[in-house]
Amino acid sequence: MLFALDAMGGDHAPEAPCRGSIQACIENPDLSVALVGIRKMIEPHIEGAPQSVRGRLSIVEASEVIGMGDNPAASIRSKKNSSLRVAIEMVRRHEAEGCISAGNTGAIVAGGVLIAGRIKGIDRPALAIPIPSLGGPSLLLDVGATVRCKPINLYQFAHMGSIYMRSLSGIDRPSIGLFSNGAEDIKGDDVIGTAREMLMESKLDFRGFVEGKDVPIGTTDVVVCDGFTGNALIKFGEGIGEVVKTIVREEIENRFIPKIGAALMMPALRKIWGRFEYERNGGSPLLGVDGIVIKAHGNSKYRAIAGALRVACSFAQLKGMDLIKESFES
Amino acid sequence: MLFALDAMGGDHAPEAPCRGSIQACIENPDLSVALVGIRKMIEPHIEGAPQSVRGRLSIVEASEVIGMGDNPAASIRSKKNSSLRVAIEMVRRHEAEGCISAGNTGAIVAGGVLIAGRIKGIDRPALAIPIPSLGGPSLLLDVGATVRCKPINLYQFAHMGSIYMRSLSGIDRPSIGLFSNGAEDIKGDDVIGTAREMLMESKLDFRGFVEGKDVPIGTTDVVVCDGFTGNALIKFGEGIGEVVKTIVREEIENRFIPKIGAALMMPALRKIWGRFEYERNGGSPLLGVDGIVIKAHGNSKYRAIAGALRVACSFAQLKGMDLIKESFES
Repeated sequence: MLFALDAMGGDHAPEAPCRGSIQACIENPDLSVALVGIRKMIEPHIEGAPQSVRGRLSIVEASEVIGMGDNPAASIRSKKNSSLRVAIEMVRRHEAEGCISAGNTGAIVAGGVLIAGRIKGIDRPALAIPIPSLGGPSLLLDVGATVRCKPINLYQFAHMGSIYMRSLSGIDRPSIGLFSNGAEDIKGDDVIGTAREMLMESKLDFRGFVEGKDVPIGTTDVVVCDGFTGNALIKFGEGIGEVVKTIVREEIENRFIPKIGAALMMPALRKIWGRFEYERNGGSPLLGVDGIVIKAHGNSKYRAIAGALRVACSFAQLKGMDLIKESFES
Repeated sequence: MLFALDAMGGDHAPEAPCRGSIQACIENPDLSVALVGIRKMIEPHIEGAPQSVRGRLSIVEASEVIGMGDNPAASIRSKKNSSLRVAIEMVRRHEAEGCISAGNTGAIVAGGVLIAGRIKGIDRPALAIPIPSLGGPSLLLDVGATVRCKPINLYQFAHMGSIYMRSLSGIDRPSIGLFSNGAEDIKGDDVIGTAREMLMESKLDFRGFVEGKDVPIGTTDVVVCDGFTGNALIKFGEGIGEVVKTIVREEIENRFIPKIGAALMMPALRKIWGRFEYERNGGSPLLGVDGIVIKAHGNSKYRAIAGALRVACSFAQLKGMDLIKESFES
């Protein structure tokens, strides 16, 4: 299985994408990675790869880079030789099973829509991310592809989320919640209210509105929201994590007894921590586009890139995209 | 200083409002509380109050109760003798310095607007809540009064937030961030984009867009968003807190070494925890209405009600509302 990896995307590129590819290839002997980007910047980072891996890493030259601040649609259109665009084009031409990028989110979405194209029957794509919750992992979408939604978009996200969650978790009919500012039926606005009515009449296991606190509790298997809200939640959660880490360090560092306590608790704390570092540990598929396009966190280090490659492999093996295609095209 | 307290509002009413009033009166010898609600349900909870306090507690009979599921505007209009409406009417008639309720948020907002009335020059009210952050407390608004906003609403929230934060913190020109789905200027939608342009031209210390992770980090003193987003963030944070508590308990309870560690860390953990239980420890003023109306968390126990009474007192002493009135009416 060959995947195209945008070697120039993300805060730690090209080092993290290169090292992450090596790591993922060590773990998965069936995986090959085409590193897309500026050859002379990539080469030094893969020279030292183990022999068993080196043969599965190739470089595809792409001379341009889309920056984090670039206008998404404009840069995808104008930078024809950018690493991101070249990677997505490999997917479109079926030269790669899918592609992964830790670069500019908007450009990944624009590239998915403009280059790979939308699946017939789907108006707008959604980025889906599994998040840990008390009731096991649940799927949150959209976390940033479609900033503001019409009711039909939320309705389609619910269907795509249900299919993807089924393929991920094996749950036959995942329960679906529509995110609102309260669980009561009168909450939300016109868009959310109309989406709710549409979902009530669908064949999905729709449970009505869920609110902020239901997300970490995991009241439903899938939570549907617009990209603005999903993005707000994910980043807020990330910020809380960073702040708690800093405060815990401050409170404990210079105090003897709490420090011993922390040392004794460390394995348990690490385990708890790991449950919350979701976005860094994996990738979000861009659901609704005609090809596997996975977004990794912009801040991804090599482990997160390896995680995103794992997500890409399992998405391909589970035929998640084909299932969505079949459902919407029929 | 007499405040009217909705003794029937919230999950733990009337016990929590009564006990919270006693607690607040013990702490503050200048405080008197009019408990508004059904006399025979309130009396048993205040009988045991210390003598120094009993004389400062009065009961104002109100026979109806607005429930958590009631339609906000309709119930405020029809339940003329509800504890919430009677409490707000005491503010309108200047019989009380302000009122506090842990009841139906929508009804508190509707009551504030319909009974107390809006401050001239303000189109929609906002609930403001101080949240802990690395950079010291910052103010988040709106957290649920105005679900969807026009640019002018966000613009007015920024001004009200700046004034309230100045009176709370003493910072002369609090820095203002406008919440968006990323810090770059191209983020957001038309509403947020227009609000950003309006704020750029204002005299406020406006710092542009802030995103989810900036809120707990405390990049700016004030964060402005619509009520849907603010509500999502607050409740999501609350949910994370509950889940982390549960997981920590699970991971540690039955293991000897982590348990000793936890015991040694407990004082530090409690301190950290306290920094995040913001909503339970206080109240949110409904900014923009012509009177002090404070919303306490629906789940408030007596300590939180006492906290909301403290917020009400300091809001009255700081003349926060007069400052907003002066600014908008001039």
